[in-house]
Formats: sequence, structure tokens, C-alpha cells
Amino acid sequence: MGGDHGPKVVVEGAVMAARRDGISSIIVGNLEEIEKLLNQYPESDRSLISVHHASQFIQMDESPGLAIRGKPDSSIRVAFELVGAGKASAVVSPGNTGAIMAAGVFVGGTLPGIARPAIASLIPKGVGATPTVLLDSGANTGCQAFQLVQFALMGSQYACSALGIERPRIALLSNGTEASKGNDIIRSAAMMLSEIEGLNFIGYVEGRDIARDVVDVVVCDGFVGNIVLKAMEGSVGLVIDSIKAAMEHSLRAKFGLWLAKPVLRSVFKDKLDPSAYGGAPLLGLGHIAIKCHGSSKSRAVMNGIRVARKFVDEDVMQQLHTALGHLDSKMGTVDHDGGNGWSRVFEKRTTRGRKEGKGADEINGGKNDRR
Amino acid sequence: MGGDHGPKVVVEGAVMAARRDGISSIIVGNLEEIEKLLNQYPESDRSLISVHHASQFIQMDESPGLAIRGKPDSSIRVAFELVGAGKASAVVSPGNTGAIMAAGVFVGGTLPGIARPAIASLIPKGVGATPTVLLDSGANTGCQAFQLVQFALMGSQYACSALGIERPRIALLSNGTEASKGNDIIRSAAMMLSEIEGLNFIGYVEGRDIARDVVDVVVCDGFVGNIVLKAMEGSVGLVIDSIKAAMEHSLRAKFGLWLAKPVLRSVFKDKLDPSAYGGAPLLGLGHIAIKCHGSSKSRAVMNGIRVARKFVDEDVMQQLHTALGHLDSKMGTVDHDGGNGWSRVFEKRTTRGRKEGKGADEINGGKNDRR
Repeated sequence: MGGDHGPKVVVEGAVMAARRDGISSIIVGNLEEIEKLLNQYPESDRSLISVHHASQFIQMDESPGLAIRGKPDSSIRVAFELVGAGKASAVVSPGNTGAIMAAGVFVGGTLPGIARPAIASLIPKGVGATPTVLLDSGANTGCQAFQLVQFALMGSQYACSALGIERPRIALLSNGTEASKGNDIIRSAAMMLSEIEGLNFIGYVEGRDIARDVVDVVVCDGFVGNIVLKAMEGSVGLVIDSIKAAMEHSLRAKFGLWLAKPVLRSVFKDKLDPSAYGGAPLLGLGHIAIKCHGSSKSRAVMNGIRVARKFVDEDVMQQLHTALGHLDSKMGTVDHDGGNGWSRVFEKRTTRGRKEGKGADEINGGKNDRR
Repeated sequence: MGGDHGPKVVVEGAVMAARRDGISSIIVGNLEEIEKLLNQYPESDRSLISVHHASQFIQMDESPGLAIRGKPDSSIRVAFELVGAGKASAVVSPGNTGAIMAAGVFVGGTLPGIARPAIASLIPKGVGATPTVLLDSGANTGCQAFQLVQFALMGSQYACSALGIERPRIALLSNGTEASKGNDIIRSAAMMLSEIEGLNFIGYVEGRDIARDVVDVVVCDGFVGNIVLKAMEGSVGLVIDSIKAAMEHSLRAKFGLWLAKPVLRSVFKDKLDPSAYGGAPLLGLGHIAIKCHGSSKSRAVMNGIRVARKFVDEDVMQQLHTALGHLDSKMGTVDHDGGNGWSRVFEKRTTRGRKEGKGADEINGGKNDRR
């Protein structure tokens, strides 16, 4: 019922996913409104789709926590309850992100040891390269170092399970690649990450590296991630608009771009359009939840449903569970000697042995966080 | 002597600025090395350029504060001393940003009431629109609310004086436009900004708005600003690379893009290339200082010199001085009643009268900062 375009694009996306991949969906929301939309499609398209009535829904600008508690029959909360009851496998929604998060935590809780889930968005790279996982891309506006560490572990497992990257390169997003860059939280997270055995932590990357084939998983605070994600989308839009505006004055350019149109369309629609990647999972929730862009059209909803299906097929939740369950045994001690230990981490990361000591409980308690 | 390409591009940029606009430069650094580079140009090109020897220089990865104190004859420090002594009007450098900042503060101090200077970068918008001023784009990794307020005031004056925008639209960069978005620091800064008479504060903008014609000055923390700036540059690069790679497989597209090339070049070189805008001023320093991108080529250095000249010609420093001098009388009281006052700020901004009360001193002391 949410998103910028209401139930219309959700119904259309569900029909597309059924047609294309035979995925069955339960559409949760106002029964009457949804059935009216569904009835516009031929019966063959509707055979895999059912509707579950929910009398309430949460607006895009409502306060998530209050709304979830105050609206027990809201569509997003009912959707999670269907998963909790084993009647569905995953939730897909283009609605209010905070509400999806709050409903997910309220109904299904979080994975063991996870303080807050994170949204993992995919950022297109150049032709031929697997997209970059950017997390958190908007769920948490203020993160402690131990949360960034959890995001890194979840992102690594997601890149491995869902994107098929064998040893994903994990980096923290910072204002430079040198060890002296970043802020206290970033530097503290870097220290912890470099101690985790089996994690391919490569240090810091800059903004321009997100879309380059030098990193697979970029970890940041949700405030920064949201701004960066939207700024990158805005840049691509700016390029398209600038080309369009400039060619208005040249017949030659107009003809040239007409000739190049099929190629340009494939670049902008299939490689650079965020809707090509569909949904972003909320990693860390107890149930599978895929958030589609608020401005999602039906294509993005369809792709969100396909991402959810992939999560189920590849058993990503179980793998995340296992990866995080090992947090305790994987995590060594973290130096507290400031600059000294910190530079050692960057210089001798590969040769340094694992130390016994503090585990996930203490780290989750934030005691290793130097903030 | 700094930057990614050493003195070569600086010498070339100075020659280009002399040729094109008759601007005279003093190149500060290793005399022998610079004269060798200069002697490659005909004498007519060199008549406006002199060289001032400095025996030391600061590497891109040195700690700024230590380096400035420890290297009294470093080129950047000597450059500021030439301005301090009245022998030059402005410093232009593609070197270590932290070192430019530290040398600027060390030699010439900051403008009255300014805690830390900010880098103001220009972000291209669509064809026909004045670029957006993004500040701070990298000087300060952790900012308090009162600093963001100072950045907004300086950015507003800069957009007015240097870009000719009469009533610049000022916004804070956030993870959404609703009043509930942002973090404590952002929300606190928004409250203060909405109380300043004469400032056209429009609230929050998202990442995608930076390059859209909805805002003139975008204010953020330097950590976020640096990441966003580089991410946007990276996106434009990604588009170019993707188009290039895709057209490899299509003769038709290749021919089409060849036809469109003059138009595309004008878009990518003149509208979207950051070097077209040259340098970013360090607003808040006592002397004029223009930072060129670390990866600047000669064209960017030339444009940096032209920006410096514009600062001198338009007397931007005096205008900044005046604008900040009025901070005390402009700034009304700031509500401390949390959500209540905060939403009022957003809803009734235009109708709300100014209150008498706390002035710049208290605000600069950070007492109004809710962090």
C-alpha cells in the first residue's frame, strides 16, 4: 500500500514475477483496491497471486515505531506475520523503510548478536563486473563501530551467497584511503575488521571507488550510505539530462544518438538503472525482507520479488546465521593503543596472527568501541 | 610541489592563466626544478610569472599540523607568508588539503568567529543552471551544529559574491527531506539556520538534489561532503566507461557516437568535468586560498588561479567579513524544546518573527549545539 506509486506497481510487479519466473505472491493490503487492480489482468496471470486483506497501512512519513505498534493490522506488519506463521517466505515492499525495519524487528526479531539490521543496496559497476554491495544504505543514521563490523560480516556473506563472489573484498567508506583518514568510529571499526580471520578486509575506499572494480562490499553508516546512493543516482540522471539538453541544438548529434540509442538504452536501463537490480535486502532481520526503492516502478518490484526468491533458493538466511554464529570464535582482541596499533593493522594485516580473547558478546556490548 | 602530478601541472596552469587572462603568478617551491619546467615555454609566456624558492615541501600523506610547524620553509607555508606580507593576493594549490588548511590558519588565522574553514566545491547542474556550492567538501571530518551554521553563512555569501546568485537557496544535506530525518547535529543546525534573518534556508535536501536546480548551497560535514563529491565524480566516470565499453560491440553505435562526439565532449568536458570549475575556496581562512583537486591537471590549476582572481576582483573576502560580522545581530534565539520547536521551525519558518537573545559568541561556543 506504500511507496510513491501505491499498490498499482506492486500488483503489476507481482504479475510480472509470476509470468516470468512462476513466482507466487500474496499481496497484502486493501482487498477491494488490490482485487480491482488485479482484475485488469487475464486470469492466467493471476493464478499464482492471492490477496490477503489488511485494514491499515503506514504512510511514507509516519514515525515507524509508533505506527507499527499503533496499527496492528497494517499491511507491512501483517506481511511479516504471514512469514512468521510459515505462510510466506519473504516480505517485499517499496514502502516506508523505517516501517519495514520496525515491523521486521517487531515480528521476527533480528539475527543472533545483531543490534540493528542494515539495508544492502547494489551499485552498478562497469560492464562485466558484479555490482558493489553498499550497506548500510539508509536504515541507521548513527552507527557505532561494532555495528559497522556486523554490517561488514553480513555484507560479505550476502555478496558470497547471493552474488556468487568467492572472497568478497570488504572496505569501509572513508574520506581517503590513508590510515590517518576517517573518524574515530571508522578507525575503530577498521581495527576490529582487520582482526577477523577469513574476512577479506581491504581497508578504506573513497567515494569514487564504490563504482570501480576494486571492492565488492562497501560498509558505512546509513546516513552517509543513503546520501551517497541518492547522489550517485542523481549524477547518472544529470548526465542523461545534460546529453538530452545539449543535443537539442545539433541535428548531427541527434541523428548520432538515435543510431547509438539501442546501446545507450542497454547501458542506462540494464547497467546503470537501480531498478535493474530490484530490491535491497534488510540484512540482520530474522525474516527475509527486501526493500524496493520508494520510487520503484513495477520492474523494480518484480526484481525485488526475484531477489527474495534467490534468498530462499540459496538459503541465504541460514548462511548469514552461520556466519554470524562464528563471530564469537572469529573475532580476536582489539588493540586499544591508538595510533600505534592502528597503523600496525594497516601495515601488517596479512601477517598478523589471531589473538585469543574478547568475543562477540563484549563487542556487541560496545565495549570495544572507542567512540 | 604537491598534488598527484607535482610542479609540472602547476607551471603549465600558471602559464595558461597568464596567456589567457594576463594573470601574474608567483610559483613557490624548488627554484631549480620550477625554472627548468618554466624554461620550456617561450619568454613571452613567462613574463608574468616569477619563482620564489622554498626548500621544503609537504607530501600528500604527511600529518598537516606537524608538517606545517616542522617545515617553516615548506612551499605552502611560504606561499601564505607571501600573501601575509602583501606580496601576493591569494594562494592556489593542488597539494595536501590538510596542509593548505593548517598553513592558512597558522599564517593568516581565520575570519572573525569562524572555528574551522570549509572547502566549498562546485557541483555541475544541468545545462543552463549555476553550479551548486557543496561545503564542507573535505576539510573537517567531524562538525558541530554551529560549524554547519557558519558554513551555511559563508556558502551563501560565496554563492552571492562569486556566482552572482541573488538570494541563494541554502539547505542541509540529509537522508530525506522530512523534518524527522537527519541526526541530532543536522536537526540542531536546521533550528539555528531557520532563525537567521536574511538567509534563504530551505531545509533539507537529499543526495539526488545536489545536482538538481532546487538548491544553490548544500551544507554538510566534510566527511560526508568528501565522500559524496568523489562518489558523484565516480558515477560520471562510470557512465562514460559504460558507454565506451558497450559501443565496442556495435558499429552502428560507434558511428552514432562519433557523430554526437562534439556535443558529448562539450557535455562531459565543459559541464560535468570538475576541472572546468577549477578550484574550491577554503572559506573562513583569513587569506584567500583555492584548493585544486589533488588529481588536477593544468586546466584545473589555471581555473583555480582564475577563481582566485575573481575573489580579489569581487572583494569576496571583505563581503564574507561583513556577512560574518553580522552573525551576532542576525542570529536570534534557538529553541531547546525538542520536537515541538523543531517542527515549528519547519512549518512556520516564513511567518515566524525574530527573537532577541543569544548571539554569535554563545553559538560559537557551541552552547546551542544539542549534541
